[in-house]
Amino acid sequence: MTERINHQWRLTSRPNGDLTEANFNWTETPVPALQDGEVLLRSLYLSLDPANRGWVREGGSYRDEIALGAVMEGGAIGIVEESKHPKFAVGDHVQTMIGWQEFLVSDGKGVTKLPVMPGLPLTAYLGLFGHIGLTAYFGLLDICNPKPGETLVVSAAAGAVGSLVGQIGKLKGCHVVGIAGSDDKCKWIVDELGFDAAINYKTEKIQDGLRRTCPKGIDIYFENVGGEILDAVLARLNLHARISVCGMISQYNASKPVPGPYNIINLISKRAKMEGFLVTDYMPRAQEAMQDLGAWFQQGKLKYRVDVVEGLKNTPAALSKLFDGSNQGKLIIKVS
Amino acid sequence: MTERINHQWRLTSRPNGDLTEANFNWTETPVPALQDGEVLLRSLYLSLDPANRGWVREGGSYRDEIALGAVMEGGAIGIVEESKHPKFAVGDHVQTMIGWQEFLVSDGKGVTKLPVMPGLPLTAYLGLFGHIGLTAYFGLLDICNPKPGETLVVSAAAGAVGSLVGQIGKLKGCHVVGIAGSDDKCKWIVDELGFDAAINYKTEKIQDGLRRTCPKGIDIYFENVGGEILDAVLARLNLHARISVCGMISQYNASKPVPGPYNIINLISKRAKMEGFLVTDYMPRAQEAMQDLGAWFQQGKLKYRVDVVEGLKNTPAALSKLFDGSNQGKLIIKVS
Repeated sequence: MTERINHQWRLTSRPNGDLTEANFNWTETPVPALQDGEVLLRSLYLSLDPANRGWVREGGSYRDEIALGAVMEGGAIGIVEESKHPKFAVGDHVQTMIGWQEFLVSDGKGVTKLPVMPGLPLTAYLGLFGHIGLTAYFGLLDICNPKPGETLVVSAAAGAVGSLVGQIGKLKGCHVVGIAGSDDKCKWIVDELGFDAAINYKTEKIQDGLRRTCPKGIDIYFENVGGEILDAVLARLNLHARISVCGMISQYNASKPVPGPYNIINLISKRAKMEGFLVTDYMPRAQEAMQDLGAWFQQGKLKYRVDVVEGLKNTPAALSKLFDGSNQGKLIIKVS
Repeated sequence: MTERINHQWRLTSRPNGDLTEANFNWTETPVPALQDGEVLLRSLYLSLDPANRGWVREGGSYRDEIALGAVMEGGAIGIVEESKHPKFAVGDHVQTMIGWQEFLVSDGKGVTKLPVMPGLPLTAYLGLFGHIGLTAYFGLLDICNPKPGETLVVSAAAGAVGSLVGQIGKLKGCHVVGIAGSDDKCKWIVDELGFDAAINYKTEKIQDGLRRTCPKGIDIYFENVGGEILDAVLARLNLHARISVCGMISQYNASKPVPGPYNIINLISKRAKMEGFLVTDYMPRAQEAMQDLGAWFQQGKLKYRVDVVEGLKNTPAALSKLFDGSNQGKLIIKVS
């Protein structure tokens, strides 16, 4: 049998600013022969996420930094190509951290077999039924406890997480306002997803937009971006407001420290809370979310969009779409 | 009977920076004759608090701004001098917002009769058994739920609220570190109040101090000051840390916007929360706090210090002690 060649993107330097193709090397190595207890996975779909940026930062973020010279990490859907592992058979679909490469030899730890769900595309496991869906679900419901009639503001509202947060907010009876960076995105979240209003922060001053769309103030803010938008939201909080801090993408590529929000003192006068979370903490409760998300999806109440880029070779270039705002939905690399 | 003269401090301008005597006028007006249903109060002790600064800010803070020309407001202990009100008798001790003046004619709304507690000085009602004690009690216990063995850091630790927070933290089994601005204050909180350690932020870099005194990281931070200290704390948070935002005194006198904490993004990786509160929200639960605080006080487990300045005339000058850090304990004006 022909020797398999594994193409890989390896991290070669830590960025001072944007993470780009210049920080990676495209390498190839032969796939080693399987030992007993091992399984060979071929990557099908690779997930690209804003959090990836933190993983390459010196000192790491919520996890250890990725070492220089190592294959860049990333969650993926794969298929079992060969197996000397009792739990996996050729053809099984699995999910694990395959990384930015075509093949992974694994001892099976941390590899999850995907259930067969008719009519559900494989990419859904990187999105609605993956960490994206759980992030939106628990970040909104567990941290913020939305009540009917409350005003919910979501930033990066056309993004993978934000678009779900807004729809779940509508299902819970909130007045939902999304902030996004183009008229197309704003149109999509209002016309297709049912948000009550949208603000294009590139063409309207965010303070004006919030005044226009949140006449009753803001009860809940789902934070994906940080920076000026957070500050403007803090200035319009209602009493007992809740801010769920999911991400601060505006800061991930910053080469020097970014000042925090000027209006943070408003947390006192508004008796408001700001709470960070990581979806990994909610894994033991994943079933809860799956049931609700699955039911809403089947009832046609949750819409979901993926942005699939073809080819592992294009991965570093595609990553920038997350930070310049040009992706439309959950960003996924079709590896093979 | 001789006409009574009421001396008053009236707000005449809004400060751009420090609130000083220049922002007030010393005026005198005759005390009007009582109507039926009214009571005449003579002020005994006036409370000065960092929050007073926010009340004069244009647009207000958590309450409406004090109007220019109006008597400056402030909580006080008074005695009933005359009464045409069925609920109050001459000689009753009461607590209410008498303001920066000697006399107040009141219709009795918002006037609380003080219970007679033998051995307890009247000033205790402006401190341990007033909003100071409740602020420390609920701000720490309700917002942060401290557990034995956790590390609690308190800023403005020798202040009225901070000194109580640290002692309550010790009663709950925490490792308690106080941040204060002089060696005397640091010595007092460790030697007299039983804090485990102290940091004099004027002589030691706050990052170094936190590294030295919090080897296991920080689980709870009771925030009184804001600014650099908050940033340094955010950099050493443990997982699931809680920050109770009581005040940000470093910002109250600022004449231009102050940037928020650079490290606020750490809320995500540490799944930490930051929550503001106002003691007024806890008034319905005051009895809870009183029982615990009273018992601890009687058992000698809570020490408490007041800094009494003589004479209403000295009120604006005394206020600055709160902001330059020179007060030693709860700041009170002895009015008469």
